[in-house]
Amino acid sequence: MNDFAAGAAYVDQQLVPISEAKISLLDWGFLHSDATYDVVHVWNGQFFRLYDHLERFYQGMDKLRMSIPYSREELTQVLMGCVKATGLRDAYVEMITTRGQPRVGSRDPRTCGNQFYAFAIPFVWITKPQTGLHMVITSQQRIPAACVDPMIKNYHWLDLVMGQYEAYGRGGETAVLVDADGHLTEGPGFNVFTVQGQVICTPARGVLAGITRRTVIELAAAQGYKVIMGDLLAGHACAADEVFITSTAGGIMPITKIDSQAIGHGVVGPITQGLQQAYWDMHHDPAYSVCVDY
Amino acid sequence: MNDFAAGAAYVDQQLVPISEAKISLLDWGFLHSDATYDVVHVWNGQFFRLYDHLERFYQGMDKLRMSIPYSREELTQVLMGCVKATGLRDAYVEMITTRGQPRVGSRDPRTCGNQFYAFAIPFVWITKPQTGLHMVITSQQRIPAACVDPMIKNYHWLDLVMGQYEAYGRGGETAVLVDADGHLTEGPGFNVFTVQGQVICTPARGVLAGITRRTVIELAAAQGYKVIMGDLLAGHACAADEVFITSTAGGIMPITKIDSQAIGHGVVGPITQGLQQAYWDMHHDPAYSVCVDY
Repeated sequence: MNDFAAGAAYVDQQLVPISEAKISLLDWGFLHSDATYDVVHVWNGQFFRLYDHLERFYQGMDKLRMSIPYSREELTQVLMGCVKATGLRDAYVEMITTRGQPRVGSRDPRTCGNQFYAFAIPFVWITKPQTGLHMVITSQQRIPAACVDPMIKNYHWLDLVMGQYEAYGRGGETAVLVDADGHLTEGPGFNVFTVQGQVICTPARGVLAGITRRTVIELAAAQGYKVIMGDLLAGHACAADEVFITSTAGGIMPITKIDSQAIGHGVVGPITQGLQQAYWDMHHDPAYSVCVDY
Repeated sequence: MNDFAAGAAYVDQQLVPISEAKISLLDWGFLHSDATYDVVHVWNGQFFRLYDHLERFYQGMDKLRMSIPYSREELTQVLMGCVKATGLRDAYVEMITTRGQPRVGSRDPRTCGNQFYAFAIPFVWITKPQTGLHMVITSQQRIPAACVDPMIKNYHWLDLVMGQYEAYGRGGETAVLVDADGHLTEGPGFNVFTVQGQVICTPARGVLAGITRRTVIELAAAQGYKVIMGDLLAGHACAADEVFITSTAGGIMPITKIDSQAIGHGVVGPITQGLQQAYWDMHHDPAYSVCVDY
């Protein structure tokens, strides 16, 4: 039995089984959620759009004034090492940089030594791509960009968690949060899209620039749809022909019900299916793939 | 040499030296900052306002739909155990509840088993009470209450951290963040007060209901000042006679400069000093103290 089958982590420059992967209680990555991260997936033995994820990760660190002693090539080797240890062909791979701990007695983040962590675990699905989810548009507001830059992938999720509980309480399975003006933003770990005729729409602001979101925008444009990044109101979403969400954890996932109302015919729509097909096909394109050297 | 001299923690129902106090990378307390906490201090061998801190901590858990298997009395014994292990007469004591880990493959917080952690370390001062700090009113906005309820003490600090960096860049030592309308809110770990004549003012909304803040409001009223909880604009703060900040980590700490301008005469003012005196005197009052049974 492989100790690493349930997952492998890179902690203190060492590979350990995921059950032993721990962070100090005093790391401000925990105590202040002062951290940035990224998640890339491995599908059929290949990383998908790894360089795009790395690029976003390094940009997040720059914005938070953090750094790690690894080049993109070295970081790739670290992530590869985690996946190899598990032997997983389909994996969810997370890389994390935290502020670390300040000098004893200090409250100055500039005295901290930044820490790096990574782990690979079996692929995580928010939901299976064939299953339509019931989404609730919450009264809960998402943290605005003026407070925490959503371009920095971050762990400030209490609003998303409270939104999830609100959704459960209203009979839903997942949640999308609004901004102060009632526009849709994002949900726990995903971006949201609507389809109306030949027009595909996704919120422009106050959301993470998801790599899956970007992939869908590229694929939709290539398939001849008009893609609009703009403001999305609840009424617009409920009246759409199709709605779907996007995440590295699951790709493109259909929403077939919003606030207890069926979307379109209440089944997974043809445009969503076409984009799903194109999305998974793209995983065979060497331009977007990095093979894990098992 | 006491292994616990640098601090003691309660992790997995065991007391460990602080250097060994760790949390799983997969705990959503870390990965989603899905946690609440409280900090109480021990001064001269006594907890100060422990029951008020416990009350707030249990309220925060309720709001986040978390629970721990300890009554207030049992929790007191756990915290007491941490302090006793260190032997510290003056300590900073933190209690934390996290969401924990979901069932394998699930993203549903209701499947998580909540986790409890606590630690005691030497008393932390944001700054010494005699030293006036240079505070910057940042352009950085604090996360609004509509997104994350500030009455739930939480680790969503990236805005505070970015505010701190902004303050350093502008020659300051600490930061106070504004809301979307430019009103002052709070800084990293503290509430803020102004003194103008016999009127003491502190922001009413979008801030943690600090226990030290409450203590100051009570003491100020008892000393005959008029206390206003309301909106505080930058101009109001800069024109004040005195400004101070409050935190469990340090008590009442003077601000003698804001945005490079002296406040009042640029020295610690008499009303601030009077409140400091009353604040530390209150630590001798048995009504507010719980002795550590060393």
